[in-house]
Amino acid sequence: MAWPGATGPSEVFHRQCPAVQVLDHITSRWGIWVLLALNDGELRFFELRERIDGVSEKMLSQTLKHLVADGLVWRHVEPTVPPQVTYGLTELGEGTAQRLGGMFDWIRGNADTIMDARGKADA
Amino acid sequence: MAWPGATGPSEVFHRQCPAVQVLDHITSRWGIWVLLALNDGELRFFELRERIDGVSEKMLSQTLKHLVADGLVWRHVEPTVPPQVTYGLTELGEGTAQRLGGMFDWIRGNADTIMDARGKADA
Repeated sequence: MAWPGATGPSEVFHRQCPAVQVLDHITSRWGIWVLLALNDGELRFFELRERIDGVSEKMLSQTLKHLVADGLVWRHVEPTVPPQVTYGLTELGEGTAQRLGGMFDWIRGNADTIMDARGKADA
Repeated sequence: MAWPGATGPSEVFHRQCPAVQVLDHITSRWGIWVLLALNDGELRFFELRERIDGVSEKMLSQTLKHLVADGLVWRHVEPTVPPQVTYGLTELGEGTAQRLGGMFDWIRGNADTIMDARGKADA
C-alpha cells in the first residue's frame, strides 16, 4: 500500500496507513451497520439504535464519533430541550455506503452457496 | 432485511440473519485484510501473516476458519513434512474481495477529504 513514509513491499497492510485506519473504522463491529442504516436517509440517535440489533448506546456513540471524525458521517444538533441529534452521510460516506451495500447485496444474493458451505463445514 | 423467520421492519439488521453474520466475518478485525491479501493470489499461512501488519497467529487462524466455513476461502494441505497449507479465494470470495477492494480503492482515492476531516475534528 502506497502511503507517505511507507517502507517494505507495497502489498503489506500497515496499521499506520490512514486508509487502513479508515477501513478499520468502517468495518468496525458496528460501523458497517451504521453506514448501511444511514444509506436509507438521515436518522436520529435512538432510531439508529433501534435499527441495529444488539448495539449498546456506548458502542453506537463511539462508532459515530469515529465516522464523523473520518468525514463519512455528519452530526447535527437541534438546540431544543432536550437537544435533537441527527446523523447523515456526507458525500464520502454515501460513496462508501453504496459500495458496502453492493457487497452486502451480493453476499445476500449468494446465501445458498454460503449455507451449503456451512453445512459442509459442520458435517 | 428479508431472511426466513424475520419479524419486524425490514430495515433492522438482525444478528441471526445469515447475511449479517457473513458480513460480520468478512468485516471482522482481520477478515478484510485476509480477503484483500488473497485477492492478489493464493498464499501460504506465513505469507498471509507477513502481509497483515499486527495479526497474531491465533487471530489469523480463527479468521481463516470463519472464512473457509462461509465458503469464501479454500484451504489446501500438501502432505509434506511439515505439511504446507495454502489458502485462496473461492468464486464467492473473489466477488466479495473485488467489491471490498473497490471500496478500499475509493477510500484511498479520497485520502485528502479524510485527512481534512480529521484535521477539523482534532482542532
